[in-house]
Amino acid sequence: MRTEMRLTGSGGQGLILAGIIFAEAALLDGNNSLQSQSYGPEARGGASKAEVIISKEEIDFPKVQVPNVLLSLTQVACDKYSSEIADDGIFIIDETVNVEDVKASVKLYRVPILKTAVEEVGKSIVANIVAIGFITELTGLVSKENVEAAILNRIPKGTEELNKKALEHGYKLALAVK
Amino acid sequence: MRTEMRLTGSGGQGLILAGIIFAEAALLDGNNSLQSQSYGPEARGGASKAEVIISKEEIDFPKVQVPNVLLSLTQVACDKYSSEIADDGIFIIDETVNVEDVKASVKLYRVPILKTAVEEVGKSIVANIVAIGFITELTGLVSKENVEAAILNRIPKGTEELNKKALEHGYKLALAVK
Repeated sequence: MRTEMRLTGSGGQGLILAGIIFAEAALLDGNNSLQSQSYGPEARGGASKAEVIISKEEIDFPKVQVPNVLLSLTQVACDKYSSEIADDGIFIIDETVNVEDVKASVKLYRVPILKTAVEEVGKSIVANIVAIGFITELTGLVSKENVEAAILNRIPKGTEELNKKALEHGYKLALAVK
Repeated sequence: MRTEMRLTGSGGQGLILAGIIFAEAALLDGNNSLQSQSYGPEARGGASKAEVIISKEEIDFPKVQVPNVLLSLTQVACDKYSSEIADDGIFIIDETVNVEDVKASVKLYRVPILKTAVEEVGKSIVANIVAIGFITELTGLVSKENVEAAILNRIPKGTEELNKKALEHGYKLALAVK
C-alpha cells in the first residue's frame, strides 16, 4: 500500500513540480504523500531527481528506497539513477534514452515524451506534464480528476490550456501502450 | 552540523518554493541538503509546511525531528506546528501571529513580514522572499551570494527586480533586530 516514485532528468525539466503535483493529487485522493528532493555532490553533475511516496497509511520512513515507478527523461539521469528499481517496477524512459541490463521482471516503457511536448503540444517545457499524464493513465496511482486539480493549483495563470493539452497527450501515449 | 528548518504558513504563500531555494543555496554553498513536504490529514486544514535539512555530512535520516529554525506566517500554521522546536531554536513569526508558552531558551522574533511584502515591496506574493532574506541575514545558514543565485534560478523571468527588492527588505528587517 506504499508506492515510491523517483522522477529523474535534467535540472530545468520541472520534475520537482511534477513531484509536488503527484503529491497534491494523492492528498486530494485521500492518501498520505511525501515529496522530496535531496541535493548532494551528485546533484552537481546536471542530473536532477524528485521523489514521491504515496501511501494509505501514515508515512513513517520518509525515504525512497527502491522505487516502484522510475522515470528518466535524460541519458545522464538514467545512467545515474536507474540501478535501483523494484523487481516488478515500472521504468519509463524517454525515447532518446538507452538502457541496458534491465531486469526481465521490470516493465520498461520507452516513450516519446520530449518529442510529444515539442511537436504535439508546442513547448518543450511541458514535458513534465506529458510525463504526469503518461504515468497517471498507465498506473492509476492518482486519479485523473485530482491530478488535473493539482496541476491547476500549481501552474502559472494563462497556461491552463497548454498544460491540459500536454496532460491529454500524456494520457494518449499511455493508452497506446497499455 | 545538521540544521533543520520548518517553514509554515498557508497554502498559497510559496513556502515550498522557499524551501527549494534554501536547499539549492545550501548545495551551492557546498553543503548537502534535503527539501520535503508531506501531505496528510493535517494538510487538509489550510496550513502548509515545507522542511529543509542542511548538513555538511550526508543526510542519513531525512526527516525533520525538532527544527532549529521555525517560521510561522499565519496563526493557523503557528497553532498547528509550533509545539516542536529545539531548546536553543530560532522561532520567527509574522507580527500578525500570537504565541504563548514559548520556552525561554528559544529566540523569538516577531516580524512584519507580510506587511513589508505588501507595503514596502508592493506584492503580498513575495512574503516568502522577504522571509528568506530575514532568515538568511539572521542565521547565516546559507550565503547571500548563493541564496540570490538560487532565487534567480527559480522565479519567473521578469520578476527579478521585485524579488531582489523583497530579499533586501528581508535582510533589513533582520539587521534591525540583530
